[in-house]
Amino acid sequence: MRSGLPVAVVGLGLMGGSLARALAAQGAHVLGFDRNVQHLLAAMREGAVHEELDASLRGIARAEVVLLALPISATVHALATIAPHLGNARLVMDVASTKATIVEAAASAGIGATYMGAHPLTGSHRSGWGASRASLFRDARVFLCPTRATTPETQRLAESFWATLGAGTECLDAERHDREMAWRSHLPHVLSTTLAVTLHDAGIRRSALGPGGRDMTRLSGGSTAMWAPIVEDNRAEIATALRACEAQLRAFREALEQGDDQATTRFLAQGCTWFDGEPGPRGADLAPMR
Amino acid sequence: MRSGLPVAVVGLGLMGGSLARALAAQGAHVLGFDRNVQHLLAAMREGAVHEELDASLRGIARAEVVLLALPISATVHALATIAPHLGNARLVMDVASTKATIVEAAASAGIGATYMGAHPLTGSHRSGWGASRASLFRDARVFLCPTRATTPETQRLAESFWATLGAGTECLDAERHDREMAWRSHLPHVLSTTLAVTLHDAGIRRSALGPGGRDMTRLSGGSTAMWAPIVEDNRAEIATALRACEAQLRAFREALEQGDDQATTRFLAQGCTWFDGEPGPRGADLAPMR
Repeated sequence: MRSGLPVAVVGLGLMGGSLARALAAQGAHVLGFDRNVQHLLAAMREGAVHEELDASLRGIARAEVVLLALPISATVHALATIAPHLGNARLVMDVASTKATIVEAAASAGIGATYMGAHPLTGSHRSGWGASRASLFRDARVFLCPTRATTPETQRLAESFWATLGAGTECLDAERHDREMAWRSHLPHVLSTTLAVTLHDAGIRRSALGPGGRDMTRLSGGSTAMWAPIVEDNRAEIATALRACEAQLRAFREALEQGDDQATTRFLAQGCTWFDGEPGPRGADLAPMR
Repeated sequence: MRSGLPVAVVGLGLMGGSLARALAAQGAHVLGFDRNVQHLLAAMREGAVHEELDASLRGIARAEVVLLALPISATVHALATIAPHLGNARLVMDVASTKATIVEAAASAGIGATYMGAHPLTGSHRSGWGASRASLFRDARVFLCPTRATTPETQRLAESFWATLGAGTECLDAERHDREMAWRSHLPHVLSTTLAVTLHDAGIRRSALGPGGRDMTRLSGGSTAMWAPIVEDNRAEIATALRACEAQLRAFREALEQGDDQATTRFLAQGCTWFDGEPGPRGADLAPMR
């Protein structure tokens, strides 16, 4: 990364805060905005943001790289706001967890050529500036979803950007990304929350769980402000994954109630086999996605 | 622990192997048995077992403390085998994950006075001697379930035994233990396996998951040989917990399909609230169990 490269980071939560910290550490000149002025001031005090942007976001005209680190609907809204002011931008990215809606909005706003939807597959059950850290993206996998107009040069810049932060990238179609994420990320999240709500109703506290139960409920602590828009934006794909999971759960419970020890043992063994790395019937199709 | 205290450990898997290692490190004289002779030899080579027991288990007559670290049905079987030979035993314990069946079997075998069912709430998704380690029980919580004949002296010895290994103990009725574990341990395990099987069928490998998805599927790798007997032994209680979980999952999925964003957001927020420590409606009843 060129020393002094002007980069705008809009939103200084877990993702944006971590981006600002990592970029500042790499020598970039970070222009920052957060609607929570305390977070903005903290970021400036800690040297992660060098210059503040006001709410009009007009100051992004000076940035060569623009990063939107906002919830999904706020990202879509911000795209329309910034589109007229992207004077010097060679690369514009968001880091939201679903991509089809946003990538389409970027194309519609006329900034598709320099746009790349990004989804870093990393995070924390904690959120906000206080949870951010410069190392968040190191060794992370980042999905890159181009618009229909993204140029090869934009893609090259995006890949180089994430490589600088220590992350590996994988380019794929936004619809396929969202469909895959329904299984790989959103289904696990919803299941963790389902377990949390079930235990809540049974009067069992998280502190009463062993290490395994704590693993299983860690995701349930994720920010509702972040996750509600994700499940809404990807509702159809998530519902499909949940139906498949419900069918498995019901089948296991019925086998258990019927005393079908062979079936319950087979189910447990199938989980182990998968854990140990067997790809499953559709593995051949989807393996390249890893 | 008295130096040279003769302790028998039957079964040298994750639990038994870890017990043997920890006890040897504390200066006990460990008599060991495992039907896998390679594991027994490894344990002797590594100094965790000082003397081998043969399959008749008659050698346990010399042990003052006898530990059964076997699957549930093998534990029940071993209780009948060892009962006539417990010459010097002041404390006999098993470490299986369900307790009602075993504690009843110990009482029926006429060794209730010196018996204490134990369930260390610790483990690993790995199993066997190779996964064992001396530190497994340090800071662990161990549930102690007496028989109807367990003496106060036996209870005192059991508490002192686990304290020596760095674990905290909590005494409770075996039936209540099993009912609680259905929610606190067995439900999370079955959910993890359900997710694993669902992802298997969708052709998604574990290596394609992010940190959250990997947390959610870690338990699915647990030993089928250990878990099949647990779910069989505690089937009614687990089925009740699964039914509650299925109802929550279905309710969330239906709200999602109906576009009821308020309901889906409320569900996610409820998970967060629980994660953050709110006890839930029955918290007052069950809190002492922690």
